[in-house]
Amino acid sequence: MGRWEPDARGRMLEAAIELFTEKGYDKTTAGDIAARAGVTERTFFRHFADKREVLFAGPVTLDDLVAKAVASADAEATPLRMVLDGVHQAAVELSALRTREQAVERARIVEATPALRERELLKMADMATAAQAALVERGVAETVAALAAHAAAAVFQAAFGRWVSETTDLSLAECVDEAAATLLELR
Amino acid sequence: MGRWEPDARGRMLEAAIELFTEKGYDKTTAGDIAARAGVTERTFFRHFADKREVLFAGPVTLDDLVAKAVASADAEATPLRMVLDGVHQAAVELSALRTREQAVERARIVEATPALRERELLKMADMATAAQAALVERGVAETVAALAAHAAAAVFQAAFGRWVSETTDLSLAECVDEAAATLLELR
Repeated sequence: MGRWEPDARGRMLEAAIELFTEKGYDKTTAGDIAARAGVTERTFFRHFADKREVLFAGPVTLDDLVAKAVASADAEATPLRMVLDGVHQAAVELSALRTREQAVERARIVEATPALRERELLKMADMATAAQAALVERGVAETVAALAAHAAAAVFQAAFGRWVSETTDLSLAECVDEAAATLLELR
Repeated sequence: MGRWEPDARGRMLEAAIELFTEKGYDKTTAGDIAARAGVTERTFFRHFADKREVLFAGPVTLDDLVAKAVASADAEATPLRMVLDGVHQAAVELSALRTREQAVERARIVEATPALRERELLKMADMATAAQAALVERGVAETVAALAAHAAAAVFQAAFGRWVSETTDLSLAECVDEAAATLLELR
């Protein structure tokens, strides 16, 4: 009791991914995850509102990362460049938080579970909204900001899909750069 | 009984929008919607699985419209052009199904209700997935197809947001064209 748990969060994520895979998402409880991770339920709920959030909550959020990057971007950069740089930085930080194997497992579970898929899409939409607001804050016109933000979200989604598809050895950040280049070549 | 109901669907959509606005989404039942529309609950459930679907079900779906347009696109067209044309056609067909006022009201309700917002995002994601599959079917490389499909979804979302924002007199299809032009100018 009161013992300091090194990386309890990481162990709970690991445990959740294992249990969702073994028993399915619906049949796994927060208590199961806590037990497998070797923490109390109280510790679980100190970190996460519910079992769904284990896969989504993190020390940093996509929208904060992207909004911060836009806010501090070079004033000479185009709106799209500002937000793509933000997505690139977010990719670097996110891949430091979980291994590729965890991301692949997590993506498989999310794809198979409507409640998780909806949550993932909301996260992406929130990121686009945050990026759009940050661009408007920088003086970018509303319609341009909306497009640049949604296009950057498109880049992130395509990059993330490729990264977890196991058809590539690229890092997530490299997948973002590849997708951004593909976007710029689309005509 | 058995009386033919002209446009029962349209009346139920109208009734749902009114009731969700007056009483809120959570407090409105399928029975309330049926009563306001002057149909039986049985009729309601013949058309819709639940109250949520009143705002989403339609004679045509975004993904079918876009996939069909991609499948029949000019072989000379670029992947992005194929899918943007599909989105344009979808916009034309969708605006024939509901008035702009209904769309504005509907958007306000969706935005304020997490369960509806998630459903809307899923619809958009399904559209991107369908467009991507249709492009791959036409021989487009997977990464290019993913980007073009997500970029077209970005165009549709930005266009739809602008159309219901009441800051414009453009039609939905014109908003799509404007957003597509903005996308192509992003650098």
